[in-house]
Amino acid sequence: MSTIEFQARQSVEQVEESTDFAPKFGPDGLLPCITTDADTGEVLMLGWMNKEALLLTIETGEAHYFSRARQVLWHKGATSGLVQKVVEARIDDDQDAIWLRVSVAGSGASCHVGYRSCFYRAVPVAEDAGKPLKFLEDQKTFNPVEVYGDVPNPTQL
Amino acid sequence: MSTIEFQARQSVEQVEESTDFAPKFGPDGLLPCITTDADTGEVLMLGWMNKEALLLTIETGEAHYFSRARQVLWHKGATSGLVQKVVEARIDDDQDAIWLRVSVAGSGASCHVGYRSCFYRAVPVAEDAGKPLKFLEDQKTFNPVEVYGDVPNPTQL
Repeated sequence: MSTIEFQARQSVEQVEESTDFAPKFGPDGLLPCITTDADTGEVLMLGWMNKEALLLTIETGEAHYFSRARQVLWHKGATSGLVQKVVEARIDDDQDAIWLRVSVAGSGASCHVGYRSCFYRAVPVAEDAGKPLKFLEDQKTFNPVEVYGDVPNPTQL
Repeated sequence: MSTIEFQARQSVEQVEESTDFAPKFGPDGLLPCITTDADTGEVLMLGWMNKEALLLTIETGEAHYFSRARQVLWHKGATSGLVQKVVEARIDDDQDAIWLRVSVAGSGASCHVGYRSCFYRAVPVAEDAGKPLKFLEDQKTFNPVEVYGDVPNPTQL
């Protein structure tokens, strides 16, 4: 049983300008979470949290998510060892998105494909619009087959 | 009419490991967009894009979003002047989230409340779990009333 209580959302002023923590989950019960490397500022992943994942993240100081692919609570790093320790957590103006600055154990990777960041490809813009994606990381930090074995790939078409 | 075509999603390998741009929009037609300051790495906001907003962002090199509160396409900065110029755009492994590194015109603010970042409050974690939110920016970079006048506040309870 959690000792933390979320506040009821009573007014725009309360949500935006007070110190009340009154997060808003979407119709699917989830809230998006931006996770960045606390040292480099690189965005590692965009995850999703249900109420339980958010409470566990706050209480333990380790990132927990809700896996939309597997529909289960997910303690990041439980399989791979690449636990994300929360250095700072921030909530946005209308309290429907969270930002975690984390330090990652081990190799520092956060992406199930094996890259450091899930955002390992650039989308060309402006005068380069329409060109193919461009890879930004030239090698994987771990071998997903060795780490995850035959756990199903979470990517859904 | 756009000159850019998104690719059809055919396999996990194509989506994760190829240079094909095959973004996946949610059931509501939207894709989350993380926007960070290209210089400082600070997360400025989490926005949402429909297909049109994503195409316009890529073609113009300026961030466009879809406002969920107003249900309209939104050229960021059209009212405030605080246009976000895209320095780099990245897509994630399963191509259902985008990350924009931007430089912001004018005062550099991106938050309708008047702060630089929408994430101006920290959520205490671990041994501090349950304490009130903590403000991280001590002053607003602009006066929202002067900039937006009586445009309705987008925050929804």
